[in-house]
Amino acid sequence: MAQAQFPRILGHEGAGVVESVGEGVKDFKVGDHVLPVYVGECGECSNCKRDHNNLCEKYWPCLKGTMMLHPVGQKSRFSVLKEGKVQPILSFFTSTFSEYTVIKADCCAKIHDDAPFEKACLFGCGLPTGFGAAWNTAKVEKGSIVAVIGLGTIGLAAADAARIAGASRVIGIDINPKKFELAKKFGVTECINPKDHQSPIQKVLQDLTSGGVDYCFECVGNVDLMLAALESTREGTGKTIIVGLDPSGRPLSFNPTHLFGRSIMSPVCGEYKGKSHIPGLIDKLVKQELSVDEYITDTLPFEEINKAIALLKNGDCLRCVLTMG
Amino acid sequence: MAQAQFPRILGHEGAGVVESVGEGVKDFKVGDHVLPVYVGECGECSNCKRDHNNLCEKYWPCLKGTMMLHPVGQKSRFSVLKEGKVQPILSFFTSTFSEYTVIKADCCAKIHDDAPFEKACLFGCGLPTGFGAAWNTAKVEKGSIVAVIGLGTIGLAAADAARIAGASRVIGIDINPKKFELAKKFGVTECINPKDHQSPIQKVLQDLTSGGVDYCFECVGNVDLMLAALESTREGTGKTIIVGLDPSGRPLSFNPTHLFGRSIMSPVCGEYKGKSHIPGLIDKLVKQELSVDEYITDTLPFEEINKAIALLKNGDCLRCVLTMG
Repeated sequence: MAQAQFPRILGHEGAGVVESVGEGVKDFKVGDHVLPVYVGECGECSNCKRDHNNLCEKYWPCLKGTMMLHPVGQKSRFSVLKEGKVQPILSFFTSTFSEYTVIKADCCAKIHDDAPFEKACLFGCGLPTGFGAAWNTAKVEKGSIVAVIGLGTIGLAAADAARIAGASRVIGIDINPKKFELAKKFGVTECINPKDHQSPIQKVLQDLTSGGVDYCFECVGNVDLMLAALESTREGTGKTIIVGLDPSGRPLSFNPTHLFGRSIMSPVCGEYKGKSHIPGLIDKLVKQELSVDEYITDTLPFEEINKAIALLKNGDCLRCVLTMG
Repeated sequence: MAQAQFPRILGHEGAGVVESVGEGVKDFKVGDHVLPVYVGECGECSNCKRDHNNLCEKYWPCLKGTMMLHPVGQKSRFSVLKEGKVQPILSFFTSTFSEYTVIKADCCAKIHDDAPFEKACLFGCGLPTGFGAAWNTAKVEKGSIVAVIGLGTIGLAAADAARIAGASRVIGIDINPKKFELAKKFGVTECINPKDHQSPIQKVLQDLTSGGVDYCFECVGNVDLMLAALESTREGTGKTIIVGLDPSGRPLSFNPTHLFGRSIMSPVCGEYKGKSHIPGLIDKLVKQELSVDEYITDTLPFEEINKAIALLKNGDCLRCVLTMG
């Protein structure tokens, strides 16, 4: 994916209110509460029609630099006046670091009117990615042993989902021990800092669990940790769920006989379809069947966006939510 | 696995009649029809108690050279008189190239009295490995596109299971075109010989299916073909099921971003538990819900075992069944 083109508007988790609808739009009306989803759903292609992992064939190819909310090949609808000329600005997924946007109806999910925007927006990517990795992909079962490498929002969501699914142990791994106290609120039962150990983390996990974990979630995006995740799972039955994306281009390399009985999966957004499934998750939030309060460590106004980004970059916060003016 | 120790008795698919039972055995009586299963089931360990891929923790470690039917660490019960001395002979899985054997009750499945031995024996490994790869692991669904690399018994069983599950296309790949006519009887809808193409097989499959197959089964045991299988599946959703075992030790190596949305799994015996599940499959055979006649190309008496092995080695037959004297 050509993610490194500029100028572009960042952000891909947001929620808001419909201000107007275009001709032919039937599913939405002015005033509806909505969530932009980063992979749209045409409803017609073979991936949309099937129940498993969804990558709409119409909208998935849009993630290549120009705004996905437009037909493939068109330039972004965002633009800026620069040196007297209107110049296009590229998008990043749904580009939610903007106060107004134009979104195709296929790329928008109608959500419950009572869902607070600052919580609902977390369902735009991070939380379903973690929840779904545990519930839809791994299908974590009661009594199982789970490890989560990387305790950011996605890792904690995977841990939380494993806890809800009844895992007997949820082992959290991170090189930032500041995260450990918070992690325990998400169902992490024990924390490991690889820097405290001479042995590689897979050996530590194998020893700690007398033969390996049942499920290991890689939530960092580092090929070495992906291999560690695979090797930390139980021989013959373990599942490795790769949630992180490693941009380095380095290969993941292993002896395939080590895979015997094991599996590796790499779900997209927790195998949730944004438009079809996310509203149901947000209903659970409204009914208080899911709590997401702990994921928000700071709430800042839109003008302080750079401060929010600095907090994230320094590892001083888990998730900042921006509130629009 | 230390498979290359000799002398040993080969064979791991057989069926027979109980001639006597040891003290304390409650599940079997003289005259029962049984199938030796190559991974026993203690019923007590955490793997046995769980519903997914089974590798009994008690019996799995026995697959290391000496007969698995004994407690770990003991020598084989098979022996030979050589130069006046009784010397042990090693086993290979269930060592069914023998007329009599002693088997632990945990490693034996009681089967339907009306199941013909020469057909039931195929459920000792090959058929459930192929069937289960499609039904239990891939969970092939109606309308999906399937590719099978390697059209031996296991590949054909996977193809047959895909057909039964309702796959719209089952593409068979083999470098031996002699197999193509037979393959069509197992639900293979089109056959490809990689030698007929300039492009690598993954490119041929991608082109033939406008973007990749939904499920690709590697049933050969070659790391290059495992990579080809992965790359032949649909971007973002495809499942690669590695059924073959590559003994070369060469690594399977790929850019993990190519795995995004895809998955790789390597089931053991199609995720069937021998003792618990195989009798049910054999019931389907007796009720004629499954037909296995086409898998047997030759039936020879035990004395002609070397002729049978030569037929297999030359690729002149799909499956020879030996009948005991």
